[in-house]
Amino acid sequence: MFEIRERDGLARIGRMETAHGSVSTPVLLPVVNPNRPIIPAKDLADRFRAEILITNAYILGKSPDREAVLRDGVHRFLGFPGAVMTDSGAFQSHVYGDVDVTNAEVIGFQKEIGADLGTMLDPFSEPFHDHARAAADVEETIRRAKEADSIRGEMALVGAVQGGLHADLREQCARDVSALGVSVCAIGGVVPLLESYRFRDLVRVIVASKQGLDPSKPVHLFGAGHPLVFPLAVLLGCDLFDSASYAKYARDGRMLFPEGTRHVAEVRESGCLCPVCVAHPIQEIAASERLLAEHNLHVCFGAIRDVRRAIADGSLWELVERRGRAHPALLDAVKDLRQHNEFLEEFEPLSRPGAMYYVGPETAHRPILHRLRQRVIHRYAAPPAKGLLVLPEGDRPYSERYASVVERVLTTANVHVAVKSIWGPVPLELDHVWPLSQSIVPEGIELEALEAAEVFFREWAAGAGYPFGLLWEDPRTLDELRSRAPGGRTVDWHALRVHATADLQFGRGAANALLGGTVSYIVSQNTGKVRNVRVDGEHVLSLRAEDGWFTLKAAGARRLWKAFSMPKLRVVVDPDAVPFVREGKNVFAKFVRDADPEIRPGDEALVVSPDNELCAVAQATMNRREMLVFKRGVAARVREGVSPPSSAPPR
Amino acid sequence: MFEIRERDGLARIGRMETAHGSVSTPVLLPVVNPNRPIIPAKDLADRFRAEILITNAYILGKSPDREAVLRDGVHRFLGFPGAVMTDSGAFQSHVYGDVDVTNAEVIGFQKEIGADLGTMLDPFSEPFHDHARAAADVEETIRRAKEADSIRGEMALVGAVQGGLHADLREQCARDVSALGVSVCAIGGVVPLLESYRFRDLVRVIVASKQGLDPSKPVHLFGAGHPLVFPLAVLLGCDLFDSASYAKYARDGRMLFPEGTRHVAEVRESGCLCPVCVAHPIQEIAASERLLAEHNLHVCFGAIRDVRRAIADGSLWELVERRGRAHPALLDAVKDLRQHNEFLEEFEPLSRPGAMYYVGPETAHRPILHRLRQRVIHRYAAPPAKGLLVLPEGDRPYSERYASVVERVLTTANVHVAVKSIWGPVPLELDHVWPLSQSIVPEGIELEALEAAEVFFREWAAGAGYPFGLLWEDPRTLDELRSRAPGGRTVDWHALRVHATADLQFGRGAANALLGGTVSYIVSQNTGKVRNVRVDGEHVLSLRAEDGWFTLKAAGARRLWKAFSMPKLRVVVDPDAVPFVREGKNVFAKFVRDADPEIRPGDEALVVSPDNELCAVAQATMNRREMLVFKRGVAARVREGVSPPSSAPPR
Repeated sequence: MFEIRERDGLARIGRMETAHGSVSTPVLLPVVNPNRPIIPAKDLADRFRAEILITNAYILGKSPDREAVLRDGVHRFLGFPGAVMTDSGAFQSHVYGDVDVTNAEVIGFQKEIGADLGTMLDPFSEPFHDHARAAADVEETIRRAKEADSIRGEMALVGAVQGGLHADLREQCARDVSALGVSVCAIGGVVPLLESYRFRDLVRVIVASKQGLDPSKPVHLFGAGHPLVFPLAVLLGCDLFDSASYAKYARDGRMLFPEGTRHVAEVRESGCLCPVCVAHPIQEIAASERLLAEHNLHVCFGAIRDVRRAIADGSLWELVERRGRAHPALLDAVKDLRQHNEFLEEFEPLSRPGAMYYVGPETAHRPILHRLRQRVIHRYAAPPAKGLLVLPEGDRPYSERYASVVERVLTTANVHVAVKSIWGPVPLELDHVWPLSQSIVPEGIELEALEAAEVFFREWAAGAGYPFGLLWEDPRTLDELRSRAPGGRTVDWHALRVHATADLQFGRGAANALLGGTVSYIVSQNTGKVRNVRVDGEHVLSLRAEDGWFTLKAAGARRLWKAFSMPKLRVVVDPDAVPFVREGKNVFAKFVRDADPEIRPGDEALVVSPDNELCAVAQATMNRREMLVFKRGVAARVREGVSPPSSAPPR
Repeated sequence: MFEIRERDGLARIGRMETAHGSVSTPVLLPVVNPNRPIIPAKDLADRFRAEILITNAYILGKSPDREAVLRDGVHRFLGFPGAVMTDSGAFQSHVYGDVDVTNAEVIGFQKEIGADLGTMLDPFSEPFHDHARAAADVEETIRRAKEADSIRGEMALVGAVQGGLHADLREQCARDVSALGVSVCAIGGVVPLLESYRFRDLVRVIVASKQGLDPSKPVHLFGAGHPLVFPLAVLLGCDLFDSASYAKYARDGRMLFPEGTRHVAEVRESGCLCPVCVAHPIQEIAASERLLAEHNLHVCFGAIRDVRRAIADGSLWELVERRGRAHPALLDAVKDLRQHNEFLEEFEPLSRPGAMYYVGPETAHRPILHRLRQRVIHRYAAPPAKGLLVLPEGDRPYSERYASVVERVLTTANVHVAVKSIWGPVPLELDHVWPLSQSIVPEGIELEALEAAEVFFREWAAGAGYPFGLLWEDPRTLDELRSRAPGGRTVDWHALRVHATADLQFGRGAANALLGGTVSYIVSQNTGKVRNVRVDGEHVLSLRAEDGWFTLKAAGARRLWKAFSMPKLRVVVDPDAVPFVREGKNVFAKFVRDADPEIRPGDEALVVSPDNELCAVAQATMNRREMLVFKRGVAARVREGVSPPSSAPPR
């Protein structure tokens, strides 16, 4: 029912199938108040190209129109040809303390009126609920979810994740509810956080929920309808949003913008490009609730499209960080993302297209850079040396910038060279890997970024065995070293780079395994960079120009397979899938039995049978957590199938 | 010809009159290439509501259409009913090294074809020109500007400001050219800076030029057509922009966005709200140069409207700082604005509507906060005390937050209290003035902002005579002080606030002058805050709820007039204007003879005759520099006229 088309970390562009057509996600569901539709549902479909909307079954059930809805069905009643989700009254229970309807009644009603997606009536777990009370909320949520599942019939069910601010309860509730027959998992109880700008708590709630949720199901963030939060929420893996804001704000004379809200009376002129603002002077907009609502909806839909654009071009982190500067409380939340790096990193791709832009000191704490720093510490083996020459942050690529001074230092003085980059320590032979190779930083670096660079660097240098006494940062030292050691051989940059990159990408020891033998390089005429690496006449690796990481060849895969034992680098497939994979067919997630927990989207992987026969070399598109859960989609794209050893009989 | 309607610092919203209608500024002039108009001029008028465009007289003069343009005039030739500016070929001389036309010829041609605004042919002063060469460029520019002025006839003239990167030459050229009969002053030679993202140099060039320019004339920034730079350039006082980018980028398949440029091939989906992106799928846009150009133009026009919106609501600094996070080089430029604070501060209003938002550490360096810190040092007199209790940054208003602990400390322990705010030191009795009273900061303050707070505070505390040994920052100290001094009288907050604010607003000594006598306060029932201050029965001051600054009453004005000598606080008007001002009529700039150089827009001012007779109390809308130059508009809004002393015979 939900298929992921593109992804960037936890964010994804998907298609959700419903009984009334398919829906592109991320998506905003405009709330249609059945008693007071400011923009008729027909217009939402025709003029706003809305594929889905949401209306309230609880309100419909209480309204004088109840019989009409039951007779005609909700689609005909609203005049909407697309998908209709219905809400249950849980929010009304938050506002009014209680509702006079049961979970079973409201599920039954939603079924009867033909909702494509019906929502259970969950208890609203308030942020102030203590652990005991929130645990009871969760228990009741799961009880009702099971009940709803048992009576939903053919209707797709929206199951709720409650648990207040308690991370353990959110995760447990998420795990339990997504194990049921629910089609969409909805994170509930967040409206009070949004209303009081508690975006840090919002992040904690979403991350805790995502840690429990089945990653193959779409996630709805209930009640989040302001464009300010869309980028952040999508970054954390939310797919569906519902907005009553467009209408509610219009009623109060307020205009939504991607960076905030303004009362129309304060807006002398709208800088907005939407069809309403382009066609009407602000006085006309101010006088019309309908125009205000249309403007607000255009802005919300545009913000969602902008998020989709950012996922597709790999710039969602930049968008989130830039948007963080729109409100101090949002900035706090963006800066707090680093608290969740261990989880976020699991979903990070190996690389992204294009350059990484510095937005603020928070950029250095993105999970991709957290990973890089961890891998430089744990996978890269610094060469033995008398000391370490530390070069300051500067234009990229560092090795070109510093080429004239470091060659001899590296060899004759037996000193290793690294850049104290704001992204972390960069041993000079690693400056070609993404994003170190392609990042744009300001000249005047912010104090917080400089301090972080210092901390990152010392953490590595101490672990790498370079005592601080041997850090040389004085630029004079360069000349001194050069004058002391005027001779020396030429540095074999190709060998240094290939060796260091192999360990960083595949794990410490990979370089020795891959490069044992007589190594030769095919070097690009244009760039002077290594393109292919051959060992003993076999092509083992190709170095990609676009991101500086290796593509693994079958010969290289065989060497790694021998050197590393299960499950390292492996994706283990069902025996049924083995012949297909050997023929070069992709690995579908439903055939994955297990995988190396360190595999990340974009990583090279060894596809093996359950008894560890090498069947193919592939590029993973998912991490282990996802491979084990997804029922649809490709888990790894096979680059080359590997035949069974010739000694074995053909199957 | 140019009238300023609204302003915020150097930024202004204005109306420029031309022979073909009036033009709202800031404005973007789309460049129409007469040989290859992607969007016909008629469409620019009808569908984009363009009031003005620019085309190239040099190219027209060389084209096969030369005779047609001469016969029909440029408006009819292009089919454009609005204002037409023509360019001269200066940019072509930059690109091709030279042009085969003289300044006199091209001015003559522009006159003949009926341009509303004709541009002189200035030498293009390249950024790499050394001082001697740039000085020669400037000399030649002024020679040609005079020549152009002498032959322009009725045509409004655009005069150029050249001088490369040399601030002194830019200022001199600006001063000389704006003294001539030019209607628009154009800052030239900046395209190479824009092309190489040298935004810091761009800032320096604009500021140096503005320091010499006549502030009553509109300023064109030649060749700046990317929405990324509009907010910054307008903030620094540019009014007109011209964009060939919309068309050039379309030809290269690139889409402009407020935060950057993307090749359409990389754009899977446009998050843009413009009529083109709303109506067409991206594949259609990608396939059509015309649609790309229309999108680009919509985005540029929208960005200009957004800047106008920000000027009107006082949030342009926020917009500029947020946009700074779109590109590291722009961030460098935004951070560099503080280098120009002495100049920028002159144009800063006393206060703005609404709250001030923290965007980044650069926010603390805005000129309004620079002024506040300077005034706390130079105008505010810290009360004598044994020591200073330093409280950390926190929720506003500080005095309410800390009320429970500081009352007794202030009185019985004879210790003064101040907050080490990220905006600078805030003596507790001053926390009600804008923007200290209304600012929103993150909880997690960035290191650079914390360090700045430390530097600001120490600078003040040392000058105020509090040795560092007496700074108490340990929260335990509060309890200690309280326990040591359990008794004590109640702090007279009203008196403390009124006294401190009067000195801060009007200068050291103002409080004693205004408040000498029996003081009583009218306190608001709602807020508990002082509304009016009466001294010896006379109403001398009103404290504004919206910004915490005083409105001066006539009785207060008389006291300040006696206490301070010329020109302090004065706006000196022509004798002709005296009777009108005494009757309460506003002070027009053309009648201002002189003014206190410390007066800022929004400040209270004493309007006096040349022999220093007090004629009125007024609120300045300009600074001295502006009052002396402007020929149109109000320099100060009179609050109350003051009659001549009763001893004098009525006039």
